[in-house]
Amino acid sequence: MNPIRVGLLGLGTAGGGTYDILLRNREEIARRAGREIHVVAAAVRDLAKARRRVGDAIRLGTDAQAVVDAPDVDIVVELMGGIEPARSLILSAIAQGKHVVTANKALLALHGNEIFAEAHKRGVMVAFEAAVAGGIPIIKALREGLTANRIQWIAGIINGTSNFILTRMRDLGASFADALAEAQRLGYAEADPTFDIEGIDAAHKLTIMAAIAFGVPMRFEHAYTEGISGLTAQDIRYAAEFGYRIKLLGICRRSGAGFELRVHPTLIPERRLIANVDGVMNAVLVRGDAVGPTLFYGAGAGAEPTGSSVVADLVDVTRTHTADPDHRVPHLAFQPDRVTDLPVLPISEVETAYYLRLRALDRPGVLADVTRILGDRSISIEAMLQRQPETGEVHVDVIILTHRTVEAAMVEAIAKVEALASIVAPVVRIRLERLDA
Amino acid sequence: MNPIRVGLLGLGTAGGGTYDILLRNREEIARRAGREIHVVAAAVRDLAKARRRVGDAIRLGTDAQAVVDAPDVDIVVELMGGIEPARSLILSAIAQGKHVVTANKALLALHGNEIFAEAHKRGVMVAFEAAVAGGIPIIKALREGLTANRIQWIAGIINGTSNFILTRMRDLGASFADALAEAQRLGYAEADPTFDIEGIDAAHKLTIMAAIAFGVPMRFEHAYTEGISGLTAQDIRYAAEFGYRIKLLGICRRSGAGFELRVHPTLIPERRLIANVDGVMNAVLVRGDAVGPTLFYGAGAGAEPTGSSVVADLVDVTRTHTADPDHRVPHLAFQPDRVTDLPVLPISEVETAYYLRLRALDRPGVLADVTRILGDRSISIEAMLQRQPETGEVHVDVIILTHRTVEAAMVEAIAKVEALASIVAPVVRIRLERLDA
Repeated sequence: MNPIRVGLLGLGTAGGGTYDILLRNREEIARRAGREIHVVAAAVRDLAKARRRVGDAIRLGTDAQAVVDAPDVDIVVELMGGIEPARSLILSAIAQGKHVVTANKALLALHGNEIFAEAHKRGVMVAFEAAVAGGIPIIKALREGLTANRIQWIAGIINGTSNFILTRMRDLGASFADALAEAQRLGYAEADPTFDIEGIDAAHKLTIMAAIAFGVPMRFEHAYTEGISGLTAQDIRYAAEFGYRIKLLGICRRSGAGFELRVHPTLIPERRLIANVDGVMNAVLVRGDAVGPTLFYGAGAGAEPTGSSVVADLVDVTRTHTADPDHRVPHLAFQPDRVTDLPVLPISEVETAYYLRLRALDRPGVLADVTRILGDRSISIEAMLQRQPETGEVHVDVIILTHRTVEAAMVEAIAKVEALASIVAPVVRIRLERLDA
Repeated sequence: MNPIRVGLLGLGTAGGGTYDILLRNREEIARRAGREIHVVAAAVRDLAKARRRVGDAIRLGTDAQAVVDAPDVDIVVELMGGIEPARSLILSAIAQGKHVVTANKALLALHGNEIFAEAHKRGVMVAFEAAVAGGIPIIKALREGLTANRIQWIAGIINGTSNFILTRMRDLGASFADALAEAQRLGYAEADPTFDIEGIDAAHKLTIMAAIAFGVPMRFEHAYTEGISGLTAQDIRYAAEFGYRIKLLGICRRSGAGFELRVHPTLIPERRLIANVDGVMNAVLVRGDAVGPTLFYGAGAGAEPTGSSVVADLVDVTRTHTADPDHRVPHLAFQPDRVTDLPVLPISEVETAYYLRLRALDRPGVLADVTRILGDRSISIEAMLQRQPETGEVHVDVIILTHRTVEAAMVEAIAKVEALASIVAPVVRIRLERLDA
């Protein structure tokens, strides 16, 4: 059979990785896909640099629309990132009946509903394995591997940059700022690291996973997001004393008549496999009602791990593109006419356990006041610890682990605690999940 | 659309789990599959028992062939196990153009080449996610999720029974016999546990994974198999002193002009995630050249985890059965005309590191003799430890970890060591893999 012909939009990290894999494993990939997959054109920003990278093997230009429109391009691979012009280019490809592969999580989280509706109308495939957790085939697992299950919850380490920072803070006792600087030196964090460290990137990916797991639209605008920039090495140490590690988790969970969609630092028991996923690695823990807990682990970013997922999507499209569109795997796991509009639970109604750190004057009665405030709101205490923070200080640190309670009750309790004369600093509060899968 | 109609061969653990899931999650599954999936008939051994379980909802009988032949059965689900009549029934379904889902690893490992050839000829799907690692969607990951990669090696804990036994031996210091008896009491091991504890079941599953990973035929007859019945709690403790755990691993690896296919107890560094997979849980570590290391973890057996994979296959078939057979995902990941006949490397040519335990007379010169024998065969020592095994004994235990060497050299060295007058018992030798992914 003739080769299937690919146009790349972007030849940076992900684009370069995709290109390299298609070249290096060409034969192996063709043995799987049933025909060769050729990159015929790429749109790039820096022509000279791109030419040095790929030589004369493919057509290069700066006009992305021209690649989308090219009659010899069967599949458009969007790896430029950002919202525009990526959105318009993908919609243009769809309108022309061309299949699309993309790694653009921000775009899908924000405009996925529109893009998949257009793709469905036009009968083309839009594949996006690389958008979540890099090389881990988690989209395929959720969309196809676990279709028997009512998915109960997902908890994922889905941002490698923040996981690297947290790992360094724990291993070296480094401050957040120092660990971030190291991540930037190593190329794991960008000059403006906001998306990674504030949980926004993780919320994009979580939004996509929730849509597939629960059969709901993309609801990024309702995601709760809290990053790691406020964490201290001190809290990581205290957590360790209780047998916990702190990870930035993206969590979605069915709850009552809706579902939770939240990204925040989370204490998890150190014996859980996912607590031991370190450095830039990613892992996603999925609990289904039939299968029980499952874990998917691998590289969450980087040229070739991302390229691995892009190329897997290309093979999927190549293998199945002749199928009638009604008998393909649905883009978002559920049939488009069977999506439900389960609401996202506001964070104030979410139930979790908590780690609290109070800085207090070292005098009697403080603990009595604090436990009364918690008790009045039916927040029960699982463990408590009192520590002299550093030599010379007149204050003490009181660390409390609570049982599960509703966020609103905890917010109220913290306000009351902070109003106590004996409490000398804002209360540090980090959510805690036992993930007893 | 009309429901798709399923005939079950077997309504035991896996069949019952499949039935329960299809009933309980009927609506959720239909939202994914695009139509309902109904069990219309089942062939069982004990009619009265089956009737008590499923009531009057479906047709029950003892004649499996009648279920295969029934005009209202679109998909045949084989969950009876064993070679015959399962093989003939599956071939009969294929001949009638019916799609098949099976969890029968022994059958596929032994007769998969025949079955998939027939299925290809007839243009029907034979799906088998449940045959390997229970609820973990590892077949899909290898066949579709990692298609970009040249798979370098796979190492899996793919037998829950033996993993449970090893976990109890480590946690309680129990003997193999006691841990096996406990597994039998809990229903994790059968009255005749041979397949599980001697690595045969794991070799079946490994054979299937190797076929998909490397694009080779099923080669079960060349698999090397060594079980856990010879392991002692003593060796598990010594391994721990060096920072290792012992797991029964199924390993396949590209090597030179062939590939390795072997199941045996293996020391692995305790810091690896897979070393912390305990009890009846399964995990498969896959290394691809593009993605790097990935790990897939979950329940390896049980009614609903197995049913989870069976139903996922049913959804796959339902979603894609109208596709022209040349544009489906190939059964074994590679196109049937692109399978290669890479040979299985004999175990004597396999290279691993080793754990050795020698019981020796406590007198000078023993270590010199042993290290000379190893050195003569270029086997280098990574660590050595000498221990008084128990009070009152006149012998010492010498534990040696070696660097990687070819098995044949090690076999020769061990024979020489055992011939020494100062060595009073057979040498215990367990392979060691660092899995530095």
